[in-house]
Amino acid sequence: MVIYGYHAIEEMLKNRGIRGVLLVARDNPRSRQLTQRAAGTQVRVEQVSPGDLDLLCKSDRHHGVALSVEGPTKVEKQDLRSLLADLQQAENALIVCLDGITDPHNLGAILRSCDQFAVDLVIIPEHKSARDSETVLRISAGASRHVRIHTVPNLVQALRLCKQHGFWVYGAALEGGRPDETKLDGKVILALGSEGKGLRRLVMESCDQLISIPAYGHIDSLNVSVAAGILIYEVRRQQGFRFRE
Amino acid sequence: MVIYGYHAIEEMLKNRGIRGVLLVARDNPRSRQLTQRAAGTQVRVEQVSPGDLDLLCKSDRHHGVALSVEGPTKVEKQDLRSLLADLQQAENALIVCLDGITDPHNLGAILRSCDQFAVDLVIIPEHKSARDSETVLRISAGASRHVRIHTVPNLVQALRLCKQHGFWVYGAALEGGRPDETKLDGKVILALGSEGKGLRRLVMESCDQLISIPAYGHIDSLNVSVAAGILIYEVRRQQGFRFRE
Repeated sequence: MVIYGYHAIEEMLKNRGIRGVLLVARDNPRSRQLTQRAAGTQVRVEQVSPGDLDLLCKSDRHHGVALSVEGPTKVEKQDLRSLLADLQQAENALIVCLDGITDPHNLGAILRSCDQFAVDLVIIPEHKSARDSETVLRISAGASRHVRIHTVPNLVQALRLCKQHGFWVYGAALEGGRPDETKLDGKVILALGSEGKGLRRLVMESCDQLISIPAYGHIDSLNVSVAAGILIYEVRRQQGFRFRE
Repeated sequence: MVIYGYHAIEEMLKNRGIRGVLLVARDNPRSRQLTQRAAGTQVRVEQVSPGDLDLLCKSDRHHGVALSVEGPTKVEKQDLRSLLADLQQAENALIVCLDGITDPHNLGAILRSCDQFAVDLVIIPEHKSARDSETVLRISAGASRHVRIHTVPNLVQALRLCKQHGFWVYGAALEGGRPDETKLDGKVILALGSEGKGLRRLVMESCDQLISIPAYGHIDSLNVSVAAGILIYEVRRQQGFRFRE
């Protein structure tokens, strides 16, 4: 997979686990900055000709620098039912379900947290525009490399299927109870909405229980990726931090 | 305070508590995007002349749009000793100490978490370049408006002073123990380092105890603002979420 675009590459290089090659065809401040960022990662730097870079990117809009990432983005093509069947046997499991979180920086940070806390599965709805969801996944691909992501056409139906496999759905919503006073072990789904809008109504109605991080003051002030990280931490804490391989 | 620069304004407008005026002197895609973002916040939009905007910004590099933010950035000019004397009486208190976290997006997200969890004081070292630290604070000012921030010339000396006022210093470091198995109530200082480098050696040596969020897999993969949010949450959880006004 070859990506280009300064911010996309910068974001990818934040992931310390990333492996690949930074392809530099032009010497300019941005390519120098990215070269500096690549130092200390497992991304090596190679000089290429602008023509080669056009070919690799299948585009001439790369501004002289691109990143070739090893390994495919791990978007599961497997049937959700069979993924759930695998998890059904587990004593503890955690699925994170993202409703409308499309900002690549937030999504990237959330996937990094999912990776760190060994979240078993991330479910995200297919976007109206398939190209959008490809872009988002591509930008956060560095983080998502080790995270099992499943896209679904209908989130509510997917949640119903999860419930049939023994999962309980906990939705993040302002009116919810304290996560540390809610029983969050066993087979848990965290449903998280976007920063501005929260969970959509039908998704919220699919939740067994609502939870809300206790906070002082100014509504909605936690960054969505911070809130996601805290809730994932809280579930894993209650599950005893016993991660499955 | 008047700020300009598309990304700086965009960042400020993410803070839902922000109050101010978006000053638009030119109609272009960026000013339109910022105008859209201002909708739904307490920032009203006003048309001004380019000349007026030059005057307000004390610069002509504003690209036709600027944001006037109400209220000063809350950088404490008060003596650290007297701030600590105020906190010394409290049963529970939390000071967050940021060592080398200069990325404005991360700093902004951390200050948002400090706001949400009513962190009593944020201590950050003065930068080598005073102008840098002004910029960083300015960019994250939307979040920092309600957070008490104190800059210090020497972090190690500041930590020593805090300890003399009954605080215990917990540093985030990979070799640390589980935060949920560490006693984090009472008067707590969380010392957090930058994503790449962690805490500086002398700062780490000032810590009474090191803590580390249990995580699976790929070293250093949690975003620093997510890690900060989780640790602040964990302290506040152990302190019983009793926030002081």
